[in-house]
Amino acid sequence: MSTIPYKIYLEESEMPTQWYNVRGDMKKKPAPLLNPGTLQPMTIDELSGVFCRELAEQELDDTSRFIDIPEEIRNFYRMYRPSPLVRAYCFEEKLQTPAHIYYKFEGNNTSGSHKLNSAIAQAYYAKKQGLKGVTTETGAGQWGTALSMACSYFDLDCQVYMVKVSYEQKPFRREVMRTYGAKVTPSPSMETEVGRRINQEFPGTTGSLGCAISEAVEAATTQEGYRYVLGSVLSQVLLHQSVIGLETKAALDKYGIKADMIIGCAGGGSNLGGLISPFAGEILRGENQYEIIAVEPASCPSLTRGRYAYDFCDTGKVCPLAKMYTLGSGFIPSANHAGGLRYHGMSSVVSELYDQGILKARSVEQTSVFEAAEMFARVEGILPAPESSHAIRVAIDEALKCKETGEEKNIVFGLTGTGYFDMVAYQKYNDGEMNDYIPTDEELNVALSKLPKVE
Amino acid sequence: MSTIPYKIYLEESEMPTQWYNVRGDMKKKPAPLLNPGTLQPMTIDELSGVFCRELAEQELDDTSRFIDIPEEIRNFYRMYRPSPLVRAYCFEEKLQTPAHIYYKFEGNNTSGSHKLNSAIAQAYYAKKQGLKGVTTETGAGQWGTALSMACSYFDLDCQVYMVKVSYEQKPFRREVMRTYGAKVTPSPSMETEVGRRINQEFPGTTGSLGCAISEAVEAATTQEGYRYVLGSVLSQVLLHQSVIGLETKAALDKYGIKADMIIGCAGGGSNLGGLISPFAGEILRGENQYEIIAVEPASCPSLTRGRYAYDFCDTGKVCPLAKMYTLGSGFIPSANHAGGLRYHGMSSVVSELYDQGILKARSVEQTSVFEAAEMFARVEGILPAPESSHAIRVAIDEALKCKETGEEKNIVFGLTGTGYFDMVAYQKYNDGEMNDYIPTDEELNVALSKLPKVE
Repeated sequence: MSTIPYKIYLEESEMPTQWYNVRGDMKKKPAPLLNPGTLQPMTIDELSGVFCRELAEQELDDTSRFIDIPEEIRNFYRMYRPSPLVRAYCFEEKLQTPAHIYYKFEGNNTSGSHKLNSAIAQAYYAKKQGLKGVTTETGAGQWGTALSMACSYFDLDCQVYMVKVSYEQKPFRREVMRTYGAKVTPSPSMETEVGRRINQEFPGTTGSLGCAISEAVEAATTQEGYRYVLGSVLSQVLLHQSVIGLETKAALDKYGIKADMIIGCAGGGSNLGGLISPFAGEILRGENQYEIIAVEPASCPSLTRGRYAYDFCDTGKVCPLAKMYTLGSGFIPSANHAGGLRYHGMSSVVSELYDQGILKARSVEQTSVFEAAEMFARVEGILPAPESSHAIRVAIDEALKCKETGEEKNIVFGLTGTGYFDMVAYQKYNDGEMNDYIPTDEELNVALSKLPKVE
Repeated sequence: MSTIPYKIYLEESEMPTQWYNVRGDMKKKPAPLLNPGTLQPMTIDELSGVFCRELAEQELDDTSRFIDIPEEIRNFYRMYRPSPLVRAYCFEEKLQTPAHIYYKFEGNNTSGSHKLNSAIAQAYYAKKQGLKGVTTETGAGQWGTALSMACSYFDLDCQVYMVKVSYEQKPFRREVMRTYGAKVTPSPSMETEVGRRINQEFPGTTGSLGCAISEAVEAATTQEGYRYVLGSVLSQVLLHQSVIGLETKAALDKYGIKADMIIGCAGGGSNLGGLISPFAGEILRGENQYEIIAVEPASCPSLTRGRYAYDFCDTGKVCPLAKMYTLGSGFIPSANHAGGLRYHGMSSVVSELYDQGILKARSVEQTSVFEAAEMFARVEGILPAPESSHAIRVAIDEALKCKETGEEKNIVFGLTGTGYFDMVAYQKYNDGEMNDYIPTDEELNVALSKLPKVE
């Protein structure tokens, strides 16, 4: 038995007291959000109409390297953090690899994922500002659940627009949110103007994150005392999620382990950005080298096949423009896609780091993702979320490469959450009814041809 | 901020290396299992036809105080243990109680409950004996999931008979078991003789644990290389579950906390027996005093309204007789009962401890249980299993008593698992459609009148 435990837990006293803002270490900053009307950078006052003031400030702050985590948030974190960094001994044995595999497990909380790290921060600032409530969108439901939990903790109203296909595939998610007191509406709905417009334009649409965002933003800006909150993509979210990377780094340092490779799944980029930020910071400061791999679904391949350009963040085009790797705001993944990570664009921080070569990207197909999920579940005893399983897939591939070369690489991946609410997808896989779908260039070009003209 | 952390984790090196067998400290032992034909105590050879040999030995061993945990099992435990003992600061604040509330959380593994502690032990001994597979029953599905995980780890075939009402209410449980490679059959089925007989006798029955046990036992004894395993009730299961109590005690001792009251939910008694065993041992040895409370559903009240007598463990009457607090093996809880803990009898160890006055029992109604569950979920960030929420209910009641008296009691309760697969029940509660049901004396007497004649 090695001296490295199966699970490396930090003490509560070793938990980060500040978030790390990787933008502070970037010489070339991510491009600013633009006002879609004027095409000028969004000002703090403009942003504050949509977001809480302090969150808007965090969104625009690309120079501070560290930002204090308020005590109220740290107390909430203590209920489920520090999360374990797990040495995957059984997985290594199954794969017969000389690689050492570690995963940072963020699923040990009721939201079932890392999303809670930012949800509680956003709810806290909303409460501090004296708001009545917040609105948001959710895809697979992880973010909506996390926000419901956070709002119930701070006694805020919570209104969630849930992508229709997920709403139907995951009825129990809705009940968890209701148990935490949230109101959940399938999107596109008939309750907002933009929802009615999208329903008319695309009859029978199963919805998209971009569309649910438009509805939530409209709901926030048309109700007194409400603001909109978002679970990924934004720089503020990556800031909050840096707690994942900071803990991972601290746990590795505690045992003198140097990561060679860090792997994270990437949808909007919140988990990936949070996990890698302290490592990316070391690369940016020239202190260390790491191989960082973002893994995305082949059916929603924003980094590997998208364009680095300004685009709308939402289908209804009511949000600011962001420069990001994007498939176009009209892109909707094939309905057979079951694995989450379905946003059309990538966080501008992750996009810029990718553009600078700090990280690589890889796309994987969903049957191979569920194959990885099942293998992992059977030996490590955790049923992974399909999202997280994208990272598992590449961790397996890399561990098998090490088996060929004999390299004892230290592979770290982010296990962002659990799959308890994804059993419809697992059932499809178990029944052999899951297919892969890779969009053609022609299909991608339809949405890409509608990018806004900027500059 | 107190110096006691939110979550007390032991080091892996502080984990128990031996299980504790409370029977070793009992002067008056639990009554032996009887052969239903001869009414003589079951011999090791008779038991070995149904159970693995080493488990049969553990079942009959009422003198050893400690039994070594094999290294293979300890390695598996390391994947999800030690489990945290959580100081419920937020819950205390919500209740405005001077009491200090702690809970031992067993839900941080994919089976979602403490059941895995015994599942892995039973799978290990089956593998060691060279068996092909095991059969079992499951009610809410926690045990079946745990056993599926354990069997997949040791590459054993796993056949699960699932109580029909749960099979229908919890379709996703089946998929988790299938993901771990198990075969799941709703019970009573038409696949066994006893299943066909029960279906004929009680057409349209929604099944019961007692009935699923009969089917699983028949399946085990009619297939070469199979044995039957059981997730609760048996003394061997309580032995394995002592890991919960041992860790709880070690964590309390580490911070110099003396528990005043220990609360556990009780169905067949596996969690309760495991949680309380080291504390009960201290009472039995005259070293310490604790108030121990078993909490059961008012709709299935074996301890509070059952009879202490020999009874069949299963509906089909194929298993040994056990002396226990029982409602009669024909007792089936009202179909409106949603909260698990539906077994007709109570572990003979727990029954005997109860009879000796080492523990008290209390029954609670299900709407008050879900009310407690929701309150807890909202402030502690964990969505509890309905089973576990029985203990939460009484912890709340006791904490509120402390509020009246001003007592700073240390209340410890077992949070046995999570409720991710219980959203149908939560939905009923959220929709205001949940009712309470307390069986009348007349109803109870129907099943009690059919107890076997022993002595």
